[in-house]
Amino acid sequence: MLPALSIGEYSLVYNLFSFTFAAMFASFIFFVLARPQVASQYRSALIMSALVVAVAGYHYFRIFESWSGAYMLIDGMYQPSGQPFNDAYRYVDWLLTVPLLVAELIAVIALPPKQAGAFTFRLAGAAALMVILGYPGEIAADNGTRALWGFFSTLPFLYIVYVLFTQLGSAIERQPEGARVLVRNIRLLLLATWGFYPIVYMIPFLGDGAALSASVVVAVQVGYCIADVVAKCGYGVMIYAIARAKTTDKELVPAPAVGD
Amino acid sequence: MLPALSIGEYSLVYNLFSFTFAAMFASFIFFVLARPQVASQYRSALIMSALVVAVAGYHYFRIFESWSGAYMLIDGMYQPSGQPFNDAYRYVDWLLTVPLLVAELIAVIALPPKQAGAFTFRLAGAAALMVILGYPGEIAADNGTRALWGFFSTLPFLYIVYVLFTQLGSAIERQPEGARVLVRNIRLLLLATWGFYPIVYMIPFLGDGAALSASVVVAVQVGYCIADVVAKCGYGVMIYAIARAKTTDKELVPAPAVGD
Repeated sequence: MLPALSIGEYSLVYNLFSFTFAAMFASFIFFVLARPQVASQYRSALIMSALVVAVAGYHYFRIFESWSGAYMLIDGMYQPSGQPFNDAYRYVDWLLTVPLLVAELIAVIALPPKQAGAFTFRLAGAAALMVILGYPGEIAADNGTRALWGFFSTLPFLYIVYVLFTQLGSAIERQPEGARVLVRNIRLLLLATWGFYPIVYMIPFLGDGAALSASVVVAVQVGYCIADVVAKCGYGVMIYAIARAKTTDKELVPAPAVGD
Repeated sequence: MLPALSIGEYSLVYNLFSFTFAAMFASFIFFVLARPQVASQYRSALIMSALVVAVAGYHYFRIFESWSGAYMLIDGMYQPSGQPFNDAYRYVDWLLTVPLLVAELIAVIALPPKQAGAFTFRLAGAAALMVILGYPGEIAADNGTRALWGFFSTLPFLYIVYVLFTQLGSAIERQPEGARVLVRNIRLLLLATWGFYPIVYMIPFLGDGAALSASVVVAVQVGYCIADVVAKCGYGVMIYAIARAKTTDKELVPAPAVGD
């Protein structure tokens, strides 16, 4: 199934897996250590960020090992060793992390508990459904099946976009001044980074489906790595920035004087 | 003993073990980091949740390794390598974690110490007995022996249900408003998730007992993984939600004004 790769192609993917693993565990340390910097009601958002990158770090370690095992260097070319490259780790990862990413967003907005619970349930559920529906297409041997499941997977994605950009609108208007722009931006960041995944998903359409070319395999892996770093580490740092901005705001409110 | 598996069947179980391991360690991080979010009297419940998923994570790592070792890829099929697949890790795991799961429930209800001790002792004891009595049936070669020990194991389970739904009833009525529904729900969640285990336990009855078919092996492993994620991670998160709801309740009580 896997194509032979040049040393340069193999190493590019290898080093990018290592980079992504390092980015994930560095982000994990950051989110754990930065918790006391934000007000207590936003700490659950940072904990979720920490979970996301911990889970992703674990999976990148596994993907890394699987990549190393799937190739052997023979006469200056990397040839498939016969061991499968287990790309399914990505879907297992997303199944855990993608619902957490939307839950983070709701947590940092700090809606009233009941409203927050309803939003989290709907968005996280749709996110999980999106990942599950994408999987049969990813492992499909032909592009028709890939396109079909890709289409099904797009439906919950559109639902998420709809909820974020319409129903969540009024919640954002109630945000303090300093945080409002950040919350708007993070919604766009979520859309931009998530929008990257379908593009990578569709890269195999450039090939003929059955036999993946070396450049398609490299492009898919590079694409998913970059998307994961932006959507998990970058997004988490923005969540932190929002929590931090809202914390400062809160601290600026003077405490009521004794006797009032 | 083990049947040959297709790549898809083997990979499904393989990826689900990896998923479950990741879910366990992510939950561990969550329960450890979330402790400061709840009032101090509920932290022991969160510590127990952390222990449960840590122990389960360790065992899933072992099960994962055992699964990898038990199969070899030969001509596009996974054939038994001759090394046994050690399913007993599950029972070792449950022997430690299942008594902790009932202890968590008692801890988060926060009964008076004496009453809490008595409930914990009876429920945790019955839980351990349930696991011990199930084991001879799990390793039995014939379905008759499996059914017999399954029956014995059901007796302490029924005792646990009896205690939870009758004797614990009055304790629940004394819970604060916001937590009462959650405590009721978690009792149902415990029943629902635990009820899943006997179903998986009985899957081999679908086969002829001695030689397990590929689909039975896959169904049992998938079933236990899902049951463990819901009964340990999901249940722990609900315990956290209860502790959090009770903490907020407590904080909502206005502090006495200075001078009163």
